[in-house]
Amino acid sequence: MSIATMRQALMGVSGVPVTAYDKNGEVEPRSTAIIYRRVAMAGIHNIVAAGNTGEFYALTVEEIRSVHEAAVTGVDGKAPVTAAIGRSLREAVRMARDAAAIGASAVMAHQPVDPFAAPSAQIDYFCKLADASPLPMIAYVRADGFNVEDMVRLARHENIAGIKFATPDLMLLSRAISASDPAGTLFVCGLAESWALSFTAAGARGFTSGLVNVAPKLSLAVHEALASGDYDGARAILNKLEPFERMRTKYRNGANVTVVKEAVTHSGLNVGPVRVPGLPMLDESDREELFRLLRAWEAAGDIQRHEAPVDARAAG
Amino acid sequence: MSIATMRQALMGVSGVPVTAYDKNGEVEPRSTAIIYRRVAMAGIHNIVAAGNTGEFYALTVEEIRSVHEAAVTGVDGKAPVTAAIGRSLREAVRMARDAAAIGASAVMAHQPVDPFAAPSAQIDYFCKLADASPLPMIAYVRADGFNVEDMVRLARHENIAGIKFATPDLMLLSRAISASDPAGTLFVCGLAESWALSFTAAGARGFTSGLVNVAPKLSLAVHEALASGDYDGARAILNKLEPFERMRTKYRNGANVTVVKEAVTHSGLNVGPVRVPGLPMLDESDREELFRLLRAWEAAGDIQRHEAPVDARAAG
Repeated sequence: MSIATMRQALMGVSGVPVTAYDKNGEVEPRSTAIIYRRVAMAGIHNIVAAGNTGEFYALTVEEIRSVHEAAVTGVDGKAPVTAAIGRSLREAVRMARDAAAIGASAVMAHQPVDPFAAPSAQIDYFCKLADASPLPMIAYVRADGFNVEDMVRLARHENIAGIKFATPDLMLLSRAISASDPAGTLFVCGLAESWALSFTAAGARGFTSGLVNVAPKLSLAVHEALASGDYDGARAILNKLEPFERMRTKYRNGANVTVVKEAVTHSGLNVGPVRVPGLPMLDESDREELFRLLRAWEAAGDIQRHEAPVDARAAG
Repeated sequence: MSIATMRQALMGVSGVPVTAYDKNGEVEPRSTAIIYRRVAMAGIHNIVAAGNTGEFYALTVEEIRSVHEAAVTGVDGKAPVTAAIGRSLREAVRMARDAAAIGASAVMAHQPVDPFAAPSAQIDYFCKLADASPLPMIAYVRADGFNVEDMVRLARHENIAGIKFATPDLMLLSRAISASDPAGTLFVCGLAESWALSFTAAGARGFTSGLVNVAPKLSLAVHEALASGDYDGARAILNKLEPFERMRTKYRNGANVTVVKEAVTHSGLNVGPVRVPGLPMLDESDREELFRLLRAWEAAGDIQRHEAPVDARAAG
């Protein structure tokens, strides 16, 4: 996929589907592909395979590859598939080449996790990876400590399609956009719907979302409102989805994926628990609160229950 | 190795050797083994293989294994070899089994890096890994957010030999020790010499060290002073080594391993640069400052220059 087409997709919603496990805790490719298909059919613009909502760090390298394959199968050309890659530079390069072979459209490079990382050398990591990647790359920036020059260096790399900006440092964001990307086609809000208003106001375009697993209509409505400059409208939708997003922050964000997976399972497709160190399951009280919210969204027509295909249930 | 013997070793200095690379940036097992041998010959009590000073996260899983092998070869039974393991739970279990097959004495489990980790589920991660590890395990705790009950749960696991406590939360440390380990044989200062005084005062025993690559005598002197309750003596040695440790904190700790590797190369064994996202090399001004310090240590008899064996030079 060309960088230009990929940048267009990044200005939309980048959805991150969950990974389904079977009864034994193994990745279940068919149910996983069904989730990817659902998200793509809902009209999400870019599908991130095995990202953080897909439990990137809890999967083995082989499992990440199998999720990438399930994503390509499930999405079936309806949207770009952006394969999450990471770990050491050498392993990430291998993953980028594998993703290209599988038929992904782009890769998203997770920020290196080394505790002793120099900001400038983290940018070098991303640039070397982008040099070696046969697919356009999105750099997923999480840590603090970068300066405007670091962001400009990323933005100017010819194989970097975008920057998933996932720290609340809005001053750095706005200064980086002004210095490197006044047209605003490179910087994506990496902190989902709740932060998308402020990020968009600062010049970012598009946002990532785990909510797309459950209520893609709401994610798209936020996007549509922001794309037309209707911040009041976006805020009204945000107020509706905020209890869901807030519940995900429980246990120091340990419930982030758990809330999403429990909601997907509630919708009719059993995707299993979250692997440790994520919170495996909600407790009864949190679950009841979540289900009350989902019933309200159902009643309002914001989400729909899915009947799982028979083969997925049998596999499940 | 029995848990009891391992706990004894952990009350000493746990040294973390650097990983040597050749001219092409590949792991150089012979030079790496020489560094491990030096550290063991110096009398360091526990040798951590491929830990953070060994660039754990910048190595591929295969490279980590080759460093573990070099460590077992180099140390040659003079001290326990504790193999660093980590990544997803499944990959970490595999690494623990490999380490046992290679002949390591114990494993050190790096804290899981998942951004959405619940503190209690991180403890579950450690406990499941300790359940599956054929070797005694040290849990390397870095993140904040744990409570006393979490630490007690780790401390009570029968296959956990110790906890490398690597956050400056001294209240949690002292409360956890009082609740689980009044004899103080489980909690190790994971923040090296500079923090060892305060940690020891709070009841921890032993500390980890990257300085052992360069000046093991100074590390051992700090340990000896602390073991005999001589805090004034420990502080005097600390004042001597503090400029070295402080230099390692530059670039948001990105120079942590760089300073150590440049000093080892200065000592006569070329170990190559640090891989990104660590800072690859020092700039000229930092290097001059480092070399001035090393010359002063040499003049004081605190460190010695090594002549590299001919075969290592040829390989390097």
